Amino acid sequence: MVGVRRYFESNSERFILEWKKFLGFRSISADPAYHHECVKCADWVRDHISNLGFHAEVWKTATKPLVFAERKGNPSKASVLFYGHYDVQPVDPLELWTSEPFEATLRDGRLYARGAQDNKGQVFFFLKALEALIAEGADLPTIKILIEGEEECGSEAMQSGLKGWGERLQADILMVADTGMLVPGVPTITMGLRGIVECEVRVYGPRMDIHSGVYGGVVLNPIQALTRMLASLHNADGSIAVPGFYDGVQEPTAEEKALVADSPINLKQLEEFLGVSLAGGEKRFSALERRGLRPTLELNGIGGGYQGAGGKTVIPSFAMAKISMRLVSGQQPQKTLSTVVKYLEQIAPEGVRVEVGDFRVGGAAFRLPAQSNVLQIARRAIKSEFNVEPHCLWEGASVPIIPALAEASGAEPLLVGFGMEEDKIHSPDESFSLRQFEEGYRYVTAFFKVI
Amino acid sequence: MVGVRRYFESNSERFILEWKKFLGFRSISADPAYHHECVKCADWVRDHISNLGFHAEVWKTATKPLVFAERKGNPSKASVLFYGHYDVQPVDPLELWTSEPFEATLRDGRLYARGAQDNKGQVFFFLKALEALIAEGADLPTIKILIEGEEECGSEAMQSGLKGWGERLQADILMVADTGMLVPGVPTITMGLRGIVECEVRVYGPRMDIHSGVYGGVVLNPIQALTRMLASLHNADGSIAVPGFYDGVQEPTAEEKALVADSPINLKQLEEFLGVSLAGGEKRFSALERRGLRPTLELNGIGGGYQGAGGKTVIPSFAMAKISMRLVSGQQPQKTLSTVVKYLEQIAPEGVRVEVGDFRVGGAAFRLPAQSNVLQIARRAIKSEFNVEPHCLWEGASVPIIPALAEASGAEPLLVGFGMEEDKIHSPDESFSLRQFEEGYRYVTAFFKVI
Repeated sequence: MVGVRRYFESNSERFILEWKKFLGFRSISADPAYHHECVKCADWVRDHISNLGFHAEVWKTATKPLVFAERKGNPSKASVLFYGHYDVQPVDPLELWTSEPFEATLRDGRLYARGAQDNKGQVFFFLKALEALIAEGADLPTIKILIEGEEECGSEAMQSGLKGWGERLQADILMVADTGMLVPGVPTITMGLRGIVECEVRVYGPRMDIHSGVYGGVVLNPIQALTRMLASLHNADGSIAVPGFYDGVQEPTAEEKALVADSPINLKQLEEFLGVSLAGGEKRFSALERRGLRPTLELNGIGGGYQGAGGKTVIPSFAMAKISMRLVSGQQPQKTLSTVVKYLEQIAPEGVRVEVGDFRVGGAAFRLPAQSNVLQIARRAIKSEFNVEPHCLWEGASVPIIPALAEASGAEPLLVGFGMEEDKIHSPDESFSLRQFEEGYRYVTAFFKVI
Repeated sequence: MVGVRRYFESNSERFILEWKKFLGFRSISADPAYHHECVKCADWVRDHISNLGFHAEVWKTATKPLVFAERKGNPSKASVLFYGHYDVQPVDPLELWTSEPFEATLRDGRLYARGAQDNKGQVFFFLKALEALIAEGADLPTIKILIEGEEECGSEAMQSGLKGWGERLQADILMVADTGMLVPGVPTITMGLRGIVECEVRVYGPRMDIHSGVYGGVVLNPIQALTRMLASLHNADGSIAVPGFYDGVQEPTAEEKALVADSPINLKQLEEFLGVSLAGGEKRFSALERRGLRPTLELNGIGGGYQGAGGKTVIPSFAMAKISMRLVSGQQPQKTLSTVVKYLEQIAPEGVRVEVGDFRVGGAAFRLPAQSNVLQIARRAIKSEFNVEPHCLWEGASVPIIPALAEASGAEPLLVGFGMEEDKIHSPDESFSLRQFEEGYRYVTAFFKVI
């Protein structure tokens, strides 16, 4: 280990210069005006990885190019596929940036730039760790690298291409460094992500908004119909009342519950931050179990009738609500969505017409089993390098491309990232500290030593 | 009766000229730019009534002036207070008018102008009937006339002044001609109006909109809380579930139910017009009973979270709904409102903050008892003049000033109006047919003959 630590110290100035170069590309994927910057950035990434001794290619797609690279290694070791992205979020509002977002600037041990952390910074410590390992002649497995260019706007090329690339992406472990850690200096393993499906329910009543005096009590009010339907989606104990919704759901194991209970997340602080008590979801689970290990059905929006100042005595012609569901392991997204849609259609009352539409199947959940071999490897690496037990975190959010990539590559996802709240990703003054960068580098080198 | 009919025929051309003059005032109460036109119109009305042999005054108020007039008559007869309004609705969109809205134009037996029917036309046949009766030396009761100037924008001066004017307004019968008839040639007695109270319920959740993945299942979603609260306001049979809501409600009598069942309203046609079945309200009452004789609780608007195109996976910070309740005789508006507000506050779930506000107490309901003496007089008048039984109509809408005026004056309201759907009140090309005008004139003369 001493070799790679010394390598870091001798080369850190160059690392920062290269990292700044990487951050100089305005690779904003959401804005077509920056398409060419994305193309240039992909070329730069390919050349950089190629210089490490990889066979590296740019894959052109209908949208943004991807970089794929491979380096054959010890076939008796578990092979690794690393996934990251070179694209970044837009920078508005520009006036809130202390320095230029694409001219990376070092202040007080932090590098400030769009993408400094998400995901260029976390990709770059991975690449520099590989460089060090290769330089010292480490016994490495076969390593594949896939860096895409539209993670920030839906991973379209990945979603449509994955099936065709399956063979080339085959690996045992899918390494991702696009997550965060709960406490500085203690790496966090993201044990799961939830899946997501969405729909919109629309209730049509009278042909036009009508007078609530003249017609009140005569026709069924679409808002009343909608609120009654929506209220029937949950039970009083916070669980979801749709028959079949929980079909296949993997119940949290005792081991998972113990790890969740061990979380350093301060719930009191979270309540203060949010300004409410943590009183949502299923009462028989703790707040963190509910977030990471249980599915939800949330109403993201509702609208109907008059919403301005004062009153307007109408029975509206229309009301609608937007629904999203977070799924956990064992649930099939399309099937769960169909179950809820069928239920909504079934409970539609007489006197209104109900339509469910605007379906979006984001993707399935994934959850690392507590006995997973990959998890043991990560723990050993972290223990040996940081002399701590890692934190385990079940994320409530969804990154649909990861379960999809895991399925296509046959690899087990291992998500260990070094982001912190203070990095302000997606916001002005995004940054990544050199300390976090180095911790990431140390983790990656340690990982490849114990694999 | 022959005398007043002949009087109409001999004077109808002059009637129309005077009526056109009345319609020439741009007495739009909602628009301060026309304040002076309202003042001029009130002066004209005062002079006109004065010329009929009344003592007539203009009452200045903080907003629009009112005209009050009185003519002493036979003290053994029931005294009459006539209420109407000289103000009119705005005229936009002007380009949809066939002729100028304030230059009354006769086409095919209809007079086209803003206010032609609502309410200048219906006020004017009343005045012309009085003129004829006075000319032939009819034995009239004491008659008072109150013509206000802001019925179209909330009757503010009336609402605040009524208590102080009580003594001068005292009468036995409150005549109003600001309603419509169901079938041409058959006068309709409006037997009741519903009262109205309003409020807004607001549900506050987390300090800001938050990620529905990260926090889904952790905090209670304000939309979920709101829909659950709103759904609990009604029972499955369409009745209102708030304990105490029906306190004091006058149950429809068998006689009222029979009269309602006898209505010429074509429900099949109404369904076709509205595009929905008449499936709202309390299942144990018919559609027309529900409209006229039963209270309602309607959701006039609802809003929260994301309502744009596509999806946005947030748990919103806030959701709200606007509620209006139509009341029937026996319900006290302030008490019913308080009952509902208390209930909403009581069912507010843990994890959100609920506020009920934006209270509006429009006013109480009124209902003419089927045995009412006033009703018998109107029926006799209609029978004698038109040789038909009048239609009886319980309105679902509210005209809060009428119950308030009835209370202040001690008079029993008698609402017989001659409006039809085709008059297009409040819309471009408002009109009133000379036939309707004459029917109104005939009804008023007949009424004062049988009183």
